[in-house]
Amino acid sequence: MQQGKQSVLFEKTPYIRSCSSVVGKKEAEGPLGKYFDKVIEDPLFGQQNWELAESRFQQEALTIALEKGKIKEDQLRYLFAGDLQGQLVGTTFAMRDMNVPVFGLYGACSTMGEALSLASMVVSAGYADEVGAVTSSHLGSAEKNFRYPLEYGNQRPKSSTWTVTGSGAFIVSSSQGSVRIKGITTGVIKDYGIKDSMNMGAAMAPAAADVIYQNLQDFDCQPEEYDKIITGDLGTVGQEILIKLLKDNHYDISKVHMDCGIEIYDDKSQDTHAGGSGCACSAVTLAGYGMEQLMKKEWNKILFVPTGALLSTVSFNEGQTVPGIAHAVILERQA
Amino acid sequence: MQQGKQSVLFEKTPYIRSCSSVVGKKEAEGPLGKYFDKVIEDPLFGQQNWELAESRFQQEALTIALEKGKIKEDQLRYLFAGDLQGQLVGTTFAMRDMNVPVFGLYGACSTMGEALSLASMVVSAGYADEVGAVTSSHLGSAEKNFRYPLEYGNQRPKSSTWTVTGSGAFIVSSSQGSVRIKGITTGVIKDYGIKDSMNMGAAMAPAAADVIYQNLQDFDCQPEEYDKIITGDLGTVGQEILIKLLKDNHYDISKVHMDCGIEIYDDKSQDTHAGGSGCACSAVTLAGYGMEQLMKKEWNKILFVPTGALLSTVSFNEGQTVPGIAHAVILERQA
Repeated sequence: MQQGKQSVLFEKTPYIRSCSSVVGKKEAEGPLGKYFDKVIEDPLFGQQNWELAESRFQQEALTIALEKGKIKEDQLRYLFAGDLQGQLVGTTFAMRDMNVPVFGLYGACSTMGEALSLASMVVSAGYADEVGAVTSSHLGSAEKNFRYPLEYGNQRPKSSTWTVTGSGAFIVSSSQGSVRIKGITTGVIKDYGIKDSMNMGAAMAPAAADVIYQNLQDFDCQPEEYDKIITGDLGTVGQEILIKLLKDNHYDISKVHMDCGIEIYDDKSQDTHAGGSGCACSAVTLAGYGMEQLMKKEWNKILFVPTGALLSTVSFNEGQTVPGIAHAVILERQA
Repeated sequence: MQQGKQSVLFEKTPYIRSCSSVVGKKEAEGPLGKYFDKVIEDPLFGQQNWELAESRFQQEALTIALEKGKIKEDQLRYLFAGDLQGQLVGTTFAMRDMNVPVFGLYGACSTMGEALSLASMVVSAGYADEVGAVTSSHLGSAEKNFRYPLEYGNQRPKSSTWTVTGSGAFIVSSSQGSVRIKGITTGVIKDYGIKDSMNMGAAMAPAAADVIYQNLQDFDCQPEEYDKIITGDLGTVGQEILIKLLKDNHYDISKVHMDCGIEIYDDKSQDTHAGGSGCACSAVTLAGYGMEQLMKKEWNKILFVPTGALLSTVSFNEGQTVPGIAHAVILERQA
């Protein structure tokens, strides 16, 4: 139940019934390519625009997760879903034909952490037996929404990240499975005054550091208790800040830290600069690579900490800072 | 626990500890003016832009709700909060100085239904004892985000609604109070193919009809069991559609239906056309007028059904439809 200041330790365990990762061509060509369930070569996914393409990725990811979990859409009692687009239109047009109750979430790139947290709470409490947690991002819709439409051919600074095109879906279930969600730590918004929307790693690192610190405090454990502490999309710039902030607070996570944004592309050959980003970055890395490591018993226990940069073009253009948020989920391999 | 297809009946009852409504001048001059906690005459609330003004409304509403509930910010275990702005910047900049874990929600104008639903689930399950549910909207930020900046002096069609400037906040608690949340019914996305972003009542009515129908089915009751069935912001256009859709399905809610969008302004003297809208419309009407009727025992049991139109300027400009969503919350006066 309530554990420390910001955490929950689940009494009745929720399990990952199944999960899926659907990605674009660039992600498939990266170092984690072989771990993803499906690659969509056409960035438009047969649609007329980036936004509807993103919705198709969500639909495809959820469909595959349901198939892998051997359940049907009507067995899902709730969907927790969100994306990066203004007013969640990626999610809306993905889910409008599903007859499943939807809770729309916005946590920027931390959305999969938020969705898994709420899905686990709802399943553990007995409100539902099967719940979907879905998120997506798309290079085309994100660049158009946040920065410059791809068609402008704008030059990207070295600290900028590359939005992952794809979608990850998880089915959280009351039925026993190989991987359980042991607990969660929910993050607060942290604002360190970063104003550069091209340097989101720096904006998100304090929120990640804060929620990891709180997790270690609430569960009274050391970083080594986790085989990996996996942040979302801090990139190389944010990783350095994260490790330093936690060292200042007497926790050294350098040996167990991994960042999905750093792993998903090979900067040398793929020219992605500071790494990958977007809601899908952490979602597909966990659903593809991470879950496989747990299933193969390479890892027994991990802390998944996707990170979100809370900005819009309006807040950016009005000179606001970029606050960050991060949500932590403890995933554990069943013995 | 799980009740029927889409509902939850709470075993351990969550209560409304306190609530608050903060509104702008126009809302204060409307028929419900005397019920609101605080009126902010300056539409900018001392800020430099509409977006930060909206954040100030949220902060003020939460502060008043905490004061009325006689608890401090650090007693809140979670905040469920959202607004209409792209990437929830209204909520981000309202909550960034609070050291409370935040779940960001987007359900368009149904957000208070979504927030109260999740807050109740979390409190009833024992994950938290005190949880805040907050939402806001602002005429200035909404018109800029969705339609035309106010400065353009654009003419509004008769079916259009007026975005409520304000914020409503509720503290959902495990401690016994006068009004309890008996259950919830969570809505699915409904798309009837409406493409007119100036006719949101018609876009949302099917979603409202669907969730009300499901609530009556799941709890096996008739509309008269509720003293009021209160929708969010269907306006006069949407109300007619809602009543007809439910009549077609053998439920007559005409005697008990009330729409916050219709009640909050006097169209004759305030020139608001089809009524009020925005996340704050239903939130302040419930927190102000609705809760007072329950406290005075004018009403014993109501169904609160805020309604959301799921669109963005991008989806609208790309010719998409406007799907709707609605979430229902059963509020009951303790005997």
